[in-house]
Amino acid sequence: MEFKYNVRDLKFILKEWLPTKEVLECDRFKDLYSLEDIDQILTEGYKVCREVISPINVVGDRNPAVFNNGVVTSPPGYKEVFQFIQKNGWGSSSECSKLEGGMPLIIYKSVFEMIAAACPAMGSNIKLTSGAANVIINFGSEDDKKRFLPKMLSGEWQGTMNLTEPSAGSDVGDALTKSYPTDDPKVYKIKGTKMFITAGDGSICENTIHLVLARPPQGCQGSAGLGLYIVPKFWVNEDGSLGKLNDVTTVAVEHKMGLKGSATCMLNYGENDECFGIMLGAPPDEKGRSQGLAMMFRMMNESRIGTGHNANAQASSAYAQASLYACQRIQGYIKGERVPIIKHPDVRRMLMDMKAHTEGIRAMIFKGYFNLDIAENSADKDKAQKSAERAAILTPLIKCYGSETAVLMNCEAMQVLGGVGYTQEFPLEQSLRDSKILTIWEGTSFIHAQDLVKRKMRMGDGKPFLSWMKDIESFITVNEGTAGLEREFINLSQAYHCLAEVKNLYDFWHLNKKDELIGLYALRTLYICSMVMVASCLLEQSLAAQRTMAELSADHYDFNFYQGKIACAKYYANNILPGVFNLTEIIRNTDLSIQECPEDSLIVN
Amino acid sequence: MEFKYNVRDLKFILKEWLPTKEVLECDRFKDLYSLEDIDQILTEGYKVCREVISPINVVGDRNPAVFNNGVVTSPPGYKEVFQFIQKNGWGSSSECSKLEGGMPLIIYKSVFEMIAAACPAMGSNIKLTSGAANVIINFGSEDDKKRFLPKMLSGEWQGTMNLTEPSAGSDVGDALTKSYPTDDPKVYKIKGTKMFITAGDGSICENTIHLVLARPPQGCQGSAGLGLYIVPKFWVNEDGSLGKLNDVTTVAVEHKMGLKGSATCMLNYGENDECFGIMLGAPPDEKGRSQGLAMMFRMMNESRIGTGHNANAQASSAYAQASLYACQRIQGYIKGERVPIIKHPDVRRMLMDMKAHTEGIRAMIFKGYFNLDIAENSADKDKAQKSAERAAILTPLIKCYGSETAVLMNCEAMQVLGGVGYTQEFPLEQSLRDSKILTIWEGTSFIHAQDLVKRKMRMGDGKPFLSWMKDIESFITVNEGTAGLEREFINLSQAYHCLAEVKNLYDFWHLNKKDELIGLYALRTLYICSMVMVASCLLEQSLAAQRTMAELSADHYDFNFYQGKIACAKYYANNILPGVFNLTEIIRNTDLSIQECPEDSLIVN
Repeated sequence: MEFKYNVRDLKFILKEWLPTKEVLECDRFKDLYSLEDIDQILTEGYKVCREVISPINVVGDRNPAVFNNGVVTSPPGYKEVFQFIQKNGWGSSSECSKLEGGMPLIIYKSVFEMIAAACPAMGSNIKLTSGAANVIINFGSEDDKKRFLPKMLSGEWQGTMNLTEPSAGSDVGDALTKSYPTDDPKVYKIKGTKMFITAGDGSICENTIHLVLARPPQGCQGSAGLGLYIVPKFWVNEDGSLGKLNDVTTVAVEHKMGLKGSATCMLNYGENDECFGIMLGAPPDEKGRSQGLAMMFRMMNESRIGTGHNANAQASSAYAQASLYACQRIQGYIKGERVPIIKHPDVRRMLMDMKAHTEGIRAMIFKGYFNLDIAENSADKDKAQKSAERAAILTPLIKCYGSETAVLMNCEAMQVLGGVGYTQEFPLEQSLRDSKILTIWEGTSFIHAQDLVKRKMRMGDGKPFLSWMKDIESFITVNEGTAGLEREFINLSQAYHCLAEVKNLYDFWHLNKKDELIGLYALRTLYICSMVMVASCLLEQSLAAQRTMAELSADHYDFNFYQGKIACAKYYANNILPGVFNLTEIIRNTDLSIQECPEDSLIVN
Repeated sequence: MEFKYNVRDLKFILKEWLPTKEVLECDRFKDLYSLEDIDQILTEGYKVCREVISPINVVGDRNPAVFNNGVVTSPPGYKEVFQFIQKNGWGSSSECSKLEGGMPLIIYKSVFEMIAAACPAMGSNIKLTSGAANVIINFGSEDDKKRFLPKMLSGEWQGTMNLTEPSAGSDVGDALTKSYPTDDPKVYKIKGTKMFITAGDGSICENTIHLVLARPPQGCQGSAGLGLYIVPKFWVNEDGSLGKLNDVTTVAVEHKMGLKGSATCMLNYGENDECFGIMLGAPPDEKGRSQGLAMMFRMMNESRIGTGHNANAQASSAYAQASLYACQRIQGYIKGERVPIIKHPDVRRMLMDMKAHTEGIRAMIFKGYFNLDIAENSADKDKAQKSAERAAILTPLIKCYGSETAVLMNCEAMQVLGGVGYTQEFPLEQSLRDSKILTIWEGTSFIHAQDLVKRKMRMGDGKPFLSWMKDIESFITVNEGTAGLEREFINLSQAYHCLAEVKNLYDFWHLNKKDELIGLYALRTLYICSMVMVASCLLEQSLAAQRTMAELSADHYDFNFYQGKIACAKYYANNILPGVFNLTEIIRNTDLSIQECPEDSLIVN
């Protein structure tokens, strides 16, 4: 099936809903981009996704990256497409917003969403290169930047992020990889094994720039003791030219359920004691603490939003395919006539469910990017600070709710197709397989739920979280009773009060150190926050749609789009958001059956 | 990882919970099986699954059935294992309960559950052969039985069911395959194309006996006009010996997301006008109506329960793997100590969730089989009738709720493992892929939701459905206030009243022909019925556990098992069942956003 994407919704978000101007008016962008550029960027980007990128998606699935005699070979076409994207400004050079050519995130990410939908594996290659480049842009010396960035941005080199080790997964602080000083204070020897390195190898570029967490001799235990090092596959001389092969060896690639176009590698650093890396940031302080993980996490926060975003992009693409199939497939009768299946109530329900979820989550995601843009670029320091905090709160919601929901949406899209959806004739079975990793990498769902209840709720004495809640409360107060959305605002208001109740319960649990309960109900609390946020975004969008509709006649070609926007909000508020009441009652009752259950009766042996 | 299964729960169901004796005391079984046989049958069956069947599961996934030059070749080992199962009494000869050696369903299915968990693709081969044999047992002439059954039961031949066609999926009545009378009134010529024929070919037997729906010349339109024919791949002479190749050609096999060990075939019947089939049942009546679909559905009803059962078996196996991994994987710290991840609250939550769902759904499934056993074998005709109706009500719940939940449980099991769960090192990614088809075949989830609200709620003037509700109500009345389960019975009682409310709403909608609403809320109504039923089963099991615990000391080796049973019921009643309140409120509010949404705004184009 041809690649189709919901470009209309992206345009609505950027041009009709978000205060995009606030970003474009920042000094950084004011001479570079205007609202008028958006249509062209999106239209061109969509064309590249349709014509250049989407064709290699299935190729990568059927011809996965393979490992033979120490060499990883990417699927046919991956090298060319990667370089096409990077060279033509659709990739890292636009994504790294601090660079001269960098775009505001809200604009670039609307293109990247389509790339991730068109070929998730290729999306990973781009995103990791951008991520590694961003770390160097933010924390590298001027020399580092000159040495590495030009070719990382041109498509000649790619980048990776190395955190996980065989015995250090969710707990990064247990990493065993070591770094040893050399005569050059910036250069360390690296020794250790990293695994699950996405796009860790694959011969699509002449060089790979690994960013590697490792513990220097004076580094303390735990994650605080980790430093961060630039470890190129081929050494890079100070003038940027290639030196000899560094001692980095790919020892295996994973055989995975999906995302097969991108090689997930196990890498050995310093097997022959000849692996060198360049330190980023400062050496450890007197307590043995480094900023390695913090530097990587700064990049990762954006990339966590990015993970939820990729997931939603894949779900959105699956929804697009399902909606087209539902128009074409004739099956069953209504009033004696054979009909396309979109006429059947349950098929419409599934399409509406996918539309509401993907558009609602997309709205939340772009709120996240908008806040990151303001945080990075606003001249108003208070506003920037508040936006950074807001993005930090939204990050776990987007990552976890976005990725978990995407799996369900992919299942639902397959259900629309029925049996053929389970076959490789349609892209849905690949999309379902590809998307499942997104609930795991960049931190599992529970890691993010913990991040929410242990960090984000409590950072800055809890004020940023309360401020986020307050904004939702004000939104309700100002708009409740809006004609046509009365019931929906009542639901949102009730859901908001549920959220407030759960927040109070968490305050109480924190005060009383109820660690078990904090963990037990974390994920469900994240769902409550996410659903309230998504419903509030969809209602905001509905208000914008109502305003526009007031100026359009009902036969305007775009009138239905706005009706669809309002239907999304109503559907979500009435069919999904009530889940908040349910979860709140469950948390309120604080069932302890899990703790009462003897551990050995949880184990099937 | 080694195959592990929750045999203890199966033994509990058969020996400590269900009134198994009522089945064993039926004339049909009373001299053949006793409660004392159950342990041995399960222990031996488990051994066969572990040692013989489970090793080929991954083999089939990595070496799928392939189609080359018109020949389908099954994965290595499949032929041998199929024949081993069939020859040694673990397959069709035991599953066809009307045969001399047939077991009660509740006993055989407890073994089959482990087979389906050990290798779902092999499970399909067995089940389809049993299903085809069962149709012949129930509807074939004595000659048909002599001609086909011996070798179908011995492992020499296999069986298939042929319903779907390219333009007739969910709507079987649109089938285009035709049958033409010959000089022999029992023999018809068959012409047409069938698709999605599971185990439709694969060279694991010397012959394949297809049961094919086709429309005779005098057959009316729609599903009522379809006849059912025995169409062997090689003709079978009246003495049971093999004749020449019948004109049945495999033209393709599907490339699927999972269940790759079993070939899903497209079959052409009568390309050269030389395909013959033997009619089952009578020719069409004067209105052109045949009993073809009804005969197949009689078999399919059991096989729909079987589909939910397979799904739950796969979920249960995934849960077993996740529970073992959670004990072995060391990650993170609690009070300064590195711990296996089972100590982390969210991992325990996931294990508890999988335990409660799989044990609860298993309980509902075995209620279904128990009722089928009584329906088929009780001398008390009223009781048999009531049991048949009860099984008919439970069938859509088991099929739909069982299969949809299994996908979620497989996702959850993978989540326990994290990144490694996404790789082929562990069986979970295969299990997730394998299980997804079960929400689609044997009728999609929506087909079953419609079956519930349009047929099962209303059959027999609605009395059987009310009788099912009444039994749950009585169970609550008798047991509410049980010490230790007070809150759980309150929840069940509230959920029951929700169910009653939704039932009334449906009566009203039926009366007022609100077809759109009937369809729109069907799936959610099925979830309400399922959750009430599962909670009630788990609470019944808890009462049995409480009774046993009263006689055991707390240090008895099996004490924890019973505590686990009670924890399951409490977890489900307090964490899952409240979903019923939520769904009921949604149905009560009857949101119409889906109908208000313009169709073209549901389509991404």
